Amino acid sequence: MTSVPATAVACVYEGVGKDIKIDEKHPVTQPQDLKAGEVLVKLEYSGVCHSDLHLWKGDFPFPLPFPLIGGHEGAGRIVAIGEGTDTSLKVGQPVGVKWVESTCMDVGCGFCSGGMDQHCLKAKMSGCMVDGTFRQYMASSAKYVTPIPENLPLEYAAPVLCAGVTSWGALKRSNTKPGDWVTISGAGGGLGHLAVQYALAIGLRVAAIDTGAEKRKLLESYGVDKFIDFRDYKDASEIIAAVKETCDGLGPHARPLASLTKPLLTEALQFLRPRGTLVAVALASNTKIEAELFGFIGKGLTIVGSYVGSRSDALEALDFVARGKVKPQVVVKPMREIQQVLETLEKGQVDGRLVLKLQD
Amino acid sequence: MTSVPATAVACVYEGVGKDIKIDEKHPVTQPQDLKAGEVLVKLEYSGVCHSDLHLWKGDFPFPLPFPLIGGHEGAGRIVAIGEGTDTSLKVGQPVGVKWVESTCMDVGCGFCSGGMDQHCLKAKMSGCMVDGTFRQYMASSAKYVTPIPENLPLEYAAPVLCAGVTSWGALKRSNTKPGDWVTISGAGGGLGHLAVQYALAIGLRVAAIDTGAEKRKLLESYGVDKFIDFRDYKDASEIIAAVKETCDGLGPHARPLASLTKPLLTEALQFLRPRGTLVAVALASNTKIEAELFGFIGKGLTIVGSYVGSRSDALEALDFVARGKVKPQVVVKPMREIQQVLETLEKGQVDGRLVLKLQD
Amino acid sequence: MTSVPATAVACVYEGVGKDIKIDEKHPVTQPQDLKAGEVLVKLEYSGVCHSDLHLWKGDFPFPLPFPLIGGHEGAGRIVAIGEGTDTSLKVGQPVGVKWVESTCMDVGCGFCSGGMDQHCLKAKMSGCMVDGTFRQYMASSAKYVTPIPENLPLEYAAPVLCAGVTSWGALKRSNTKPGDWVTISGAGGGLGHLAVQYALAIGLRVAAIDTGAEKRKLLESYGVDKFIDFRDYKDASEIIAAVKETCDGLGPHARPLASLTKPLLTEALQFLRPRGTLVAVALASNTKIEAELFGFIGKGLTIVGSYVGSRSDALEALDFVARGKVKPQVVVKPMREIQQVLETLEKGQVDGRLVLKLQD
Amino acid sequence: MTSVPATAVACVYEGVGKDIKIDEKHPVTQPQDLKAGEVLVKLEYSGVCHSDLHLWKGDFPFPLPFPLIGGHEGAGRIVAIGEGTDTSLKVGQPVGVKWVESTCMDVGCGFCSGGMDQHCLKAKMSGCMVDGTFRQYMASSAKYVTPIPENLPLEYAAPVLCAGVTSWGALKRSNTKPGDWVTISGAGGGLGHLAVQYALAIGLRVAAIDTGAEKRKLLESYGVDKFIDFRDYKDASEIIAAVKETCDGLGPHARPLASLTKPLLTEALQFLRPRGTLVAVALASNTKIEAELFGFIGKGLTIVGSYVGSRSDALEALDFVARGKVKPQVVVKPMREIQQVLETLEKGQVDGRLVLKLQD
Repeated sequence: MTSVPATAVACVYEGVGKDIKIDEKHPVTQPQDLKAGEVLVKLEYSGVCHSDLHLWKGDFPFPLPFPLIGGHEGAGRIVAIGEGTDTSLKVGQPVGVKWVESTCMDVGCGFCSGGMDQHCLKAKMSGCMVDGTFRQYMASSAKYVTPIPENLPLEYAAPVLCAGVTSWGALKRSNTKPGDWVTISGAGGGLGHLAVQYALAIGLRVAAIDTGAEKRKLLESYGVDKFIDFRDYKDASEIIAAVKETCDGLGPHARPLASLTKPLLTEALQFLRPRGTLVAVALASNTKIEAELFGFIGKGLTIVGSYVGSRSDALEALDFVARGKVKPQVVVKPMREIQQVLETLEKGQVDGRLVLKLQD
Repeated sequence: MTSVPATAVACVYEGVGKDIKIDEKHPVTQPQDLKAGEVLVKLEYSGVCHSDLHLWKGDFPFPLPFPLIGGHEGAGRIVAIGEGTDTSLKVGQPVGVKWVESTCMDVGCGFCSGGMDQHCLKAKMSGCMVDGTFRQYMASSAKYVTPIPENLPLEYAAPVLCAGVTSWGALKRSNTKPGDWVTISGAGGGLGHLAVQYALAIGLRVAAIDTGAEKRKLLESYGVDKFIDFRDYKDASEIIAAVKETCDGLGPHARPLASLTKPLLTEALQFLRPRGTLVAVALASNTKIEAELFGFIGKGLTIVGSYVGSRSDALEALDFVARGKVKPQVVVKPMREIQQVLETLEKGQVDGRLVLKLQD
Repeated sequence: MTSVPATAVACVYEGVGKDIKIDEKHPVTQPQDLKAGEVLVKLEYSGVCHSDLHLWKGDFPFPLPFPLIGGHEGAGRIVAIGEGTDTSLKVGQPVGVKWVESTCMDVGCGFCSGGMDQHCLKAKMSGCMVDGTFRQYMASSAKYVTPIPENLPLEYAAPVLCAGVTSWGALKRSNTKPGDWVTISGAGGGLGHLAVQYALAIGLRVAAIDTGAEKRKLLESYGVDKFIDFRDYKDASEIIAAVKETCDGLGPHARPLASLTKPLLTEALQFLRPRGTLVAVALASNTKIEAELFGFIGKGLTIVGSYVGSRSDALEALDFVARGKVKPQVVVKPMREIQQVLETLEKGQVDGRLVLKLQD
Repeated sequence: MTSVPATAVACVYEGVGKDIKIDEKHPVTQPQDLKAGEVLVKLEYSGVCHSDLHLWKGDFPFPLPFPLIGGHEGAGRIVAIGEGTDTSLKVGQPVGVKWVESTCMDVGCGFCSGGMDQHCLKAKMSGCMVDGTFRQYMASSAKYVTPIPENLPLEYAAPVLCAGVTSWGALKRSNTKPGDWVTISGAGGGLGHLAVQYALAIGLRVAAIDTGAEKRKLLESYGVDKFIDFRDYKDASEIIAAVKETCDGLGPHARPLASLTKPLLTEALQFLRPRGTLVAVALASNTKIEAELFGFIGKGLTIVGSYVGSRSDALEALDFVARGKVKPQVVVKPMREIQQVLETLEKGQVDGRLVLKLQD
């Protein structure tokens, strides 16, 4: 068993929007103190998500239990297993901790038994309801941590645990089959570039919307069926016309990852062909879905809210990356720069997904 | 072959909201004038739908080709088959004409080949784009009219062709499985009482919302798991609480037949358990879906627009009635009272479904 | 916490086909000796299954760990929960133990995560690999015992835990939808009468095959669409003809619970309409499936092997009984008559399901 | 409208195994003689299938209506449309004629309405029940010929109409999802190389079984996850072990395209992981499926008979080729060499799919 230090580094939110404290001496749960059913994970990387920013800034409609360690895309290796734990996990095995850190896993819980454990009423959220992954050591549930394939570098695994699983989960709920068209806007962004690759990996046709020569180059390297630079068009109605023309003259079968702001949502529905599906994913406060019912019913459309993914979705999302079918763009930063990293996120677009290196 | 008169009775809309003309001498397509692929149907009954009222009153956002014969729930018997028609239909066989009167049925049409022919871009709507079923004789497509089981009285078949298929179609798109809870409001109404019976017939649990001793008695006779009289509660939040408590403390898995008005829609979403589905069905202008995204995504909800049903949905919907699992409540009126019937509909609740008797 | 005796009664197989020993002083796991993750169940009833007979008689192609307590349809109440157990189960709550007594439940196990935990490679079988339910007290897994609805008498719950879940599981894998025809032979038997009721509860049409006025009466009381007394026909081909005629002239969409013997299997396939499904359920050695490929492919048939059910299937199977949609026929016998009960099973048909009363 | 000759070339079977007659003056249906609902197709290529050989040789258990024109993988262009035909097809449009030349397409036919029209009881088979595609001109059903994408060379389209749709249909019925493992034996053969490419195109993992450096090179060029040269192993049990090891140590989720001979079928089942699916496709007489029930049920396996594909399956199968995701290996031969081509097929393995050039 690896030796485990008494304390280690952790990034602590001390209040809404307050400076994040780098606690160099945060106590580490010792192997002998693990409960039955727990494992101790030495985290090596943690992705940084827009939700981390929202949580720190207090944008979500509930209070946080400050002081709180943020983060929910952690990847590391097991260094200890609680006595009496019934598991096939091994010390040394790579595992991940995601937004949903644990759920009840009871037979009687329809969510846990039914492949939608992220909706378990007893789910605990990392970096939100319980301390998260912006730290060097973390105890978590042996029945719920996500095994990571051995050949997958952990800095690539980390962002898959939220951005990847969210993209993959949205595609799984998009009511599409191989050969169908999907339109992905923000296609070169943090979620978008993952969604594009997952979509192509399962035989969907992708019309990717973004702007600029660099995004075009990246997306064409993935093999998108069509790149649409939105700056080439005067307004939304021209973009909609271009998308429809691209997609059999009918529009796409689905729009996973629908953008958040209301006007875009309304347009999002206008893109779709009859029986098409719009999947909304990113949590944000004070934003509404709004759609004219006459057309919505007449075209038989569907709007799906897709919330991260189940524990199986996470395994699948990682598997595509381990097979080389999906490659996250990551920008690795030192752990102690967490606050600058969040501020960068706030200011605007980052190319690829920000990942903190947690071990020196 | 039955003798076919040169003229017969038809109810003609002459303009938006204008008095409906009873044309006693409307020309009848003669057997020898049928095209290959057509059948001539002697209609015996036609249901009267809220959409018929909306069409007559000009409530929908498109113009109608006046003069127009209304109606889209017609049931009758084939009296002639066009020469050169390749069909297994027989003269004398009962068939129905529904809202979607015909579609292209081409192999290359993904809607017609894919079990969602109601969305075919070439679909023609009865009593809207083409003359409908408020008449005694009608030529229609041999490949698209709906065969009706022989043992099913035609006055019961008629309302199934729109109200029935719409209810059944909504349930089919509600993402439910046997044992799941559905809440149906307006449970004793024209669509509601059918949806309740279809739901029970496939093993769903039903929480029926309506009011009054008579509705309670009717709905309990169907075997609903719970009758909720909305007048027993102070406000919507109390009703929502009662529904949630009824449905495992979580709320229903689905709400087919969601009501139209905005406040009700918002409440409809509040009823649902995580991963629940709201199905909106009834066409109405100037009505919007509106939902707060944070909760919608966090609970992983789905909103489905369900538009009547496919040709297979229609066969299935009739089959339940022929088997005695679903029994429409019908009120039969003489054809020539069409205008009073529509005005009754406009004034408010009718118990059961209004059906015109088309033959004297 | 209920007081737990040091010893209690258990029925022990001492070797292949040897007399079953009633051990009046079998040691009971004491509450303080439970591991984290375990509950102690005071069993009240256990169903007796044909597999129990096969196991005792050594009919299955593997050796048993004698001495062994048999049984795998146990229903009782929790009397203690191991310290450190993370569960929402409560002392006093009714739970069941089924054929699959426990599985690994690891995130990384595709069977446990994917809704087919009965196929987990680490599954342990009650009364086969580990001591079973023919006893008064039993420790089992908190994450795997099956919660039983409070209003469901435990003597009815017991047979559902194997016979019920097996019938329900077979229907779930039969590729049918409401309105489809299924043919169930042995319709009045232990599995058959349950399968018939489950099928009717989800809107299937049932052609029930069995013989005699009593079976007819029972099955017609359930509302089967057709009772076929096989003694009314000269041979299998006449029965097949009668079944086909009953089922739209095409044959049923599915035959769940296909009988075991080879000639019957071949006939079973002949019943089916194109794209039909035969579901084989009951474990037996030295029995083969055999089908002529030309017709099998040309008709696009499917043969499914259905093995008991998942933990969710068990919850669902119990739920139908709790709702009164399915009512098992049970014959309750005293625990100490276990050997006579098994011998009765061996001799032939028993009306309903045999259940042992485990507490005096 | 193209000018249509009075006669043209056709290859006629004159009896079981008799020399095939090249009829240089076969009458051509003239445009004015087309029925309403018919199109006249000028065929340019026809694939040659093993079934064509079986039919000519009388291997199937039914008599043929000699004299008969064989062939069922025809691709050409519409040269005339029967008067009174209601269709969106255009003169000049490329279309295909497949094994199922036409079906009833009635609303009341559950097979035609339900996406499994190949099982329609009124289906007519090309080159079997009606004259087929080994000829230069052919009248066929406007509602049933398969539109071919404009950019797809017709010599590649031809073999897709049977070999392609059969491979694709088998995958669609294999109960797999992206990331699952399939094993395809005969992976470099006529059906195999198509199935491999379709499988990869929808995100399946492929373990390809075949032999030799050339097959290895071809299959690795497609990107199979593993090539297994069966000559590297002593016997079937070693191959099974190698396949299991490749596929997560569990075996594949499915084996589409199972080989025909009985011993291979039995082995095929042994490959599969629990809940795995074997799909049998190729029609052959006097061949049986045989499986030990104990293991079949215990592992919860499925055997599916997959018969060509539906009209939608055909469109989808062509679409993958038009998109460049699947590329058939074809060997084009002059039409008049039909008999040598069939004899080549009989003698053994052909690399790629044989296609007749029908126009000079």
